[in-house]
Amino acid sequence: MTNQLDQQSRLQQLQQQIDLYKTMNLDLNMARGKPCTEQLDLSNAMLDIKIPIERDPNKDFRNYGTLDGLPGTKQLFADILEVQPEQIIIGGNSSLSMMYTTLAKAMLYGTYVSDRPWNKEDKVKFLCPSPGYDRHFAICEQLGIEMITINMDQNGPIIDEVETLVKEDPAIKGIWCVPKYSNPTGISYSSEVVKRLASMETAAKDFVIMWDNAYVLHDLYEESAVVDSIMEACSNAGNPHRVYLFTSMSKVTFAGAAVAAMAGSVENIQFVLKILGVQTIGSDKINQYRHVAFLKDLDGVKEHMKKHAEIIQPKFDATLEILEAHLGGKGIANWVKPIGGYFISLDLVQSSAKEVVALAASLGLKLTAAGATYPYYNDPNDGNIRIAPTFPPLEELKKAIEILCVCVEYTYLKHNL
Amino acid sequence: MTNQLDQQSRLQQLQQQIDLYKTMNLDLNMARGKPCTEQLDLSNAMLDIKIPIERDPNKDFRNYGTLDGLPGTKQLFADILEVQPEQIIIGGNSSLSMMYTTLAKAMLYGTYVSDRPWNKEDKVKFLCPSPGYDRHFAICEQLGIEMITINMDQNGPIIDEVETLVKEDPAIKGIWCVPKYSNPTGISYSSEVVKRLASMETAAKDFVIMWDNAYVLHDLYEESAVVDSIMEACSNAGNPHRVYLFTSMSKVTFAGAAVAAMAGSVENIQFVLKILGVQTIGSDKINQYRHVAFLKDLDGVKEHMKKHAEIIQPKFDATLEILEAHLGGKGIANWVKPIGGYFISLDLVQSSAKEVVALAASLGLKLTAAGATYPYYNDPNDGNIRIAPTFPPLEELKKAIEILCVCVEYTYLKHNL
Repeated sequence: MTNQLDQQSRLQQLQQQIDLYKTMNLDLNMARGKPCTEQLDLSNAMLDIKIPIERDPNKDFRNYGTLDGLPGTKQLFADILEVQPEQIIIGGNSSLSMMYTTLAKAMLYGTYVSDRPWNKEDKVKFLCPSPGYDRHFAICEQLGIEMITINMDQNGPIIDEVETLVKEDPAIKGIWCVPKYSNPTGISYSSEVVKRLASMETAAKDFVIMWDNAYVLHDLYEESAVVDSIMEACSNAGNPHRVYLFTSMSKVTFAGAAVAAMAGSVENIQFVLKILGVQTIGSDKINQYRHVAFLKDLDGVKEHMKKHAEIIQPKFDATLEILEAHLGGKGIANWVKPIGGYFISLDLVQSSAKEVVALAASLGLKLTAAGATYPYYNDPNDGNIRIAPTFPPLEELKKAIEILCVCVEYTYLKHNL
Repeated sequence: MTNQLDQQSRLQQLQQQIDLYKTMNLDLNMARGKPCTEQLDLSNAMLDIKIPIERDPNKDFRNYGTLDGLPGTKQLFADILEVQPEQIIIGGNSSLSMMYTTLAKAMLYGTYVSDRPWNKEDKVKFLCPSPGYDRHFAICEQLGIEMITINMDQNGPIIDEVETLVKEDPAIKGIWCVPKYSNPTGISYSSEVVKRLASMETAAKDFVIMWDNAYVLHDLYEESAVVDSIMEACSNAGNPHRVYLFTSMSKVTFAGAAVAAMAGSVENIQFVLKILGVQTIGSDKINQYRHVAFLKDLDGVKEHMKKHAEIIQPKFDATLEILEAHLGGKGIANWVKPIGGYFISLDLVQSSAKEVVALAASLGLKLTAAGATYPYYNDPNDGNIRIAPTFPPLEELKKAIEILCVCVEYTYLKHNL
């Protein structure tokens, strides 16, 4: 009873806090995982890179051509993704677009391994480890691919569940994976998960692993998660054509003006190039050159990423401190401290993510929409909230997390008095 | 009889010439319409444009966002295409890619006007005015769209034929058009053709005009062809959603690293953006900024294009002179002097384009494949050869055209003795 009285009084306290926020006309946005100004500034020198003019007109990278990308750029991405340069295609500024077109073209033409275009099948399904990346799910939804939610733990998707489903159902054509510093949970796939994904029996012979290695370079601390090479695992398992890898420099240099790449078996890449050659004559080679001239090589990229970590690590630390201070030990919410990536994933014990996000919005704090981390915006627990700490200035971020905590605790107490 | 003897002797002369070429180990490539080194050099100063850093982080164009493009870039392309900025989407470096995705997405989802995705139709057909642009035809072929060849005259596609077909056949979903300085014939569409395309009755209610205005800025001389605004004509005819316009800076600045754009009715553009928003977060805004800062406005672009004309006009003139000197008045081939664009189209009287192109290749001169300017590489007359004079240095070009003329005359005489 005393406890309940305490809680009543705490609820009133929180209500007062909320009323106060309301008077402050706040405008805080934490909806997207965007780099902040200081991070973008790290690459300003890239804009001053002198572009050498190749005097052999057939090699002039100002001109048309070179569908797969400049050799130096291919080498850099091959080193990042642990494949050979001939397994790489350099794209434009968006790895998302490369993922989209990979699946759109599978629908229209099938893959290298398919018997027919996917849209000639009665149904196409995809496994979606969740919480996951909302834009992956939006691609499936737009293409009419039915999504099956797969739960995650600290090792990746629940692999028993994955194996059972793909073995039984030939309509399941693929799975989305963010293997390192997963969006949004921050976990990295274990060796066992990588190995079993690569080697599992699939009823669909053209099953694809969409391996979005967006955060392959994005350590927050000295310690770095090690994720086994999926390409190697697939090759060893006799399934070299099962995986497409993607990554980009969007969170290395300029989020809106970087260079993306995809990788796969040589056969897959040749197949993709043949189709791609009808769509475009090639991507922006000047920007490809600029990136390699600025970053040099894998070691250069790693050095550059340390500067990013210096800027955003305090933001992650502050977020975690405030979460701990406000919500720690209260049995209201759970979160994991990530060692890389762009997000902190908050799991509410009470099914109330929608309510919390709406309350925060009413106070001027915009968060990623509740449910966005699940297929069809359908979070079965209505419990997951994605926190994106990188973009706001530190003081704004602290204010935002504090407001979020107040909203979480207030909502919890309201339901549990 | 004397004439025949003359021709015999001329054939021998040409044979000797061919034998001589064979000994020269030539390596000349006129296959593609690419700008030459001097043209690319015209834009080198663009690489030194200082990129200002916007201090409002929500407007920082180094970051993610702005799916439709920077306002200044939209304004410039709106002025070029004679539409309003809200009718514009800025893309990456490839207008071809924008055309491809426009049709690929029509197949997958239908257009703003469609009742269903095009790939749910029994058959989809497209009208292909020919000779035309091989990459347009390749897109249709890859998407499984059946192509119908439409003949061209100096006013554009034979419009009577177009009107009859589209009125009768609901499977005909669109037409490819290069309205100004058409690839490869160099002709520009007459007011009547523009008006009738815009207003004709179509059995398919979601019929689309793919208006590839690639050469809208590409005058060779003081005189400029005037093509009526298709957007205005479609709006006036009550068919505002019928047309998609495309253009790019590829042959203004850097062929491989420029900026492309598409345009259409506001409703079409909103529909496209909604679909596009799932594929990408936006195109490279730094490069968009660079282009506008360098070219300023439509007048700036026109001034810049005069410098291109100064470089390539002598190449067109030389080509025409050599054609005239070798083939003029012989009744062997016809061509039209273009006043803009990138090509000269040569029509052989004798059905022998394949033979001529193969003979030239055997002498070390690579031309655009015979038939490439027709759907399915099927030139019914086997008569059209596309000449792309811009890329080779002037002396190489002269040699190449001379060899081409020898091949044409030799082949003609061989068949007509």
